Amino acid sequence: MGIVIISPNRSTDVWESEIRKIDPNIDIQVFPNIERYEDVSVALLWNHPTGLLSKFPNLKLICSMGAGVDHILADDTISDNLPITRIVDPKLTFSMSNFVIMGVLNYHRQWPRYQKQQVEQKWDMSQPEIPIHIGVLGVGELGGDLIRKLQALDLKVAGYGNSVKEGLSYPYYHGGQLQDFLDQINVIVCLLPLTPDTEKFLNKDFFLKCKKGTYLINVARGKHLVEADLIDALDQGQLSGALLDVFLEEPLPQQHPFWRHDKIQVTPHIASVTNPKAAVPQIVNNYHNILNQQPLTNQIDRARGY
Amino acid sequence: MGIVIISPNRSTDVWESEIRKIDPNIDIQVFPNIERYEDVSVALLWNHPTGLLSKFPNLKLICSMGAGVDHILADDTISDNLPITRIVDPKLTFSMSNFVIMGVLNYHRQWPRYQKQQVEQKWDMSQPEIPIHIGVLGVGELGGDLIRKLQALDLKVAGYGNSVKEGLSYPYYHGGQLQDFLDQINVIVCLLPLTPDTEKFLNKDFFLKCKKGTYLINVARGKHLVEADLIDALDQGQLSGALLDVFLEEPLPQQHPFWRHDKIQVTPHIASVTNPKAAVPQIVNNYHNILNQQPLTNQIDRARGY
Repeated sequence: MGIVIISPNRSTDVWESEIRKIDPNIDIQVFPNIERYEDVSVALLWNHPTGLLSKFPNLKLICSMGAGVDHILADDTISDNLPITRIVDPKLTFSMSNFVIMGVLNYHRQWPRYQKQQVEQKWDMSQPEIPIHIGVLGVGELGGDLIRKLQALDLKVAGYGNSVKEGLSYPYYHGGQLQDFLDQINVIVCLLPLTPDTEKFLNKDFFLKCKKGTYLINVARGKHLVEADLIDALDQGQLSGALLDVFLEEPLPQQHPFWRHDKIQVTPHIASVTNPKAAVPQIVNNYHNILNQQPLTNQIDRARGY
Repeated sequence: MGIVIISPNRSTDVWESEIRKIDPNIDIQVFPNIERYEDVSVALLWNHPTGLLSKFPNLKLICSMGAGVDHILADDTISDNLPITRIVDPKLTFSMSNFVIMGVLNYHRQWPRYQKQQVEQKWDMSQPEIPIHIGVLGVGELGGDLIRKLQALDLKVAGYGNSVKEGLSYPYYHGGQLQDFLDQINVIVCLLPLTPDTEKFLNKDFFLKCKKGTYLINVARGKHLVEADLIDALDQGQLSGALLDVFLEEPLPQQHPFWRHDKIQVTPHIASVTNPKAAVPQIVNNYHNILNQQPLTNQIDRARGY
């Protein structure tokens, strides 16, 4: 019985100390220094090496260190019978919504234009706002919160998702209604879960369905976006700009064209960062739940992928 | 009977055409081309030349072209008996709140830092948020809306005003409670009306009462701020930065130090711009009200100054 923490190339000290604070009796091993594979019941992980989990003969539960589990589901050496949990943290939602609203308002109020005017000492009061209608792809925990907050700011917003939903307080489109959705929208926010269906969702065909001049914000996963298609869409004027917090390869490689593209704003995957203090109680709780054969909290549905 | 439009150095064509659309029978004269002073019952104005209004012997009503009336009250040649109205426009409130929230979130999420990191191709995920507690000076139409929207984003906020108020949905301080208010706050938003009491409110003494590192947003009037005191407070580190949309002299003069101060972000008085399409119906309505001796809408209280 014990926990293994697996998060290559990141410090996991705070995770270890937070677990010990709550339950000093839990045996903790940290990758790559694992000596007793048979003692591990629960794996707490982020971007683990593919195949590693098959070395733990008594593994009963996999806990993602974040809100997403795509990094786990991408490893097809993992048994389908192992339950997977994710972190649900109001602080994750708070941060994500505020980051996106910052991006939306910087576009709406043309913040880059006024910064440029300041450098040029130019006083130009004309056309101080770009009218916006925001479309949110993915209306789960994060997308739903964002939409409600955009509505509270009296901004126009609609949601798009995979499944039929009813009783929502905002206009909602699903499945084959993508074109109807995009026909109204000029700011797209991607908050989709990453599944085989949504990988490469933001591609050339998608951009051609968008209204000319649409602005893109991707805060979900780098794999949602075909990066070369975005550059083409920006260079051809089909999209007017993009704020990107996630990338196919992170950290974003030094030679990557996104760093220097004048229509792309890059942030280093900081829109919403898991807070170990909020996450660890959920993990310790599920550690005891799985050992005592109690129901898990925040378990994901493997068939849906989130 | 008729209207004079007085707004030196700005085009008033759209105001004229909007009035004609609603009531083509109203006689309109536009400053400086005034030929029949005696035909004017209502003056619609923004930054009129001091003393000009005494030339209109039959003037019955002064209408501000915006939400503020300080530009009118500053002219002490105007009779105390003349009623004054201002514009109340939901769009003014919408724009003001969204502009301020943009400024608040850019500070909270350190937008300038990430822009700098992009230029330097630096991937630094550490400390992605500055914790904030926002204090709004002035809790009228604009301040109240802003506070409710900041609360909807789950941000911590308190209000400060001149008078005692009860039943508010947010922490509120007034009068002599300024120090108690400022002790918690690290982002100050000035939305005060401009009156003799609030002129130069943002001065050296005020900044010394603020917590070290407080960030300032002024979107009210340039005269609220002692500009030299702000530069001192920034240079001494008492304040960490400022977003300023209003200035003592507008347009901000070319040689003004604000343009090039690295802790000051300047916008050209665009946080909230009166929309003539929304304002003109209120003015035409009050034109008929005053001629028919009916009650005025959005009349200001001269004693309070707003």
